[in-house]
Amino acid sequence: MRLAEIFGANVRKVRLKRGMTLESLATEAGLAYGYMGRIERGQKNPSLDVAERIAKVLEIDPITLFRAPPPER
Amino acid sequence: MRLAEIFGANVRKVRLKRGMTLESLATEAGLAYGYMGRIERGQKNPSLDVAERIAKVLEIDPITLFRAPPPER
Repeated sequence: MRLAEIFGANVRKVRLKRGMTLESLATEAGLAYGYMGRIERGQKNPSLDVAERIAKVLEIDPITLFRAPPPER
Repeated sequence: MRLAEIFGANVRKVRLKRGMTLESLATEAGLAYGYMGRIERGQKNPSLDVAERIAKVLEIDPITLFRAPPPER
C-alpha cells in the first residue's frame, strides 16, 4: 500500500469519526471537493503541506495519518 | 515547524547517520541534486510519493521521517 493510499484511508476514517462531510473537510482545508475525494481514495499524491492542512482541520497530529493500519481513534 | 521542515531535517539526519552523500541520496531517489538539498532544508514541499521514495532509499519507515523531534536512530 502506497503512503498516499494509507494517508487517504486514514483521513477518511478520521473524518467519518468526526461526523464531518467530505465537502466540509475540503472547504475547511481549502481544497476542491473532487480533489479531496481522490485524496481519500488514494488516487492523488498530495504534498506535505496539503497533508498538514488536512490534519489541522481534523485536529489530529499529521503523523497519525501516515500510520498503517489506520488509527483506531 | 512545518511538516515539510520536520521531514527535511529528519532526512538529513538519517542520511548523515548512513554516511550517505546528498548526491547519492538524490540519485538513488531519482531526484535532482538541488531539489533534494532544498527538501532537506525544508524549502520544498515534496509529495507523499517523493517522501516515500526517499524513505525507501534510506531504508526507514516513512513515518519516522515525519516525527518531531528528529529520530535518534
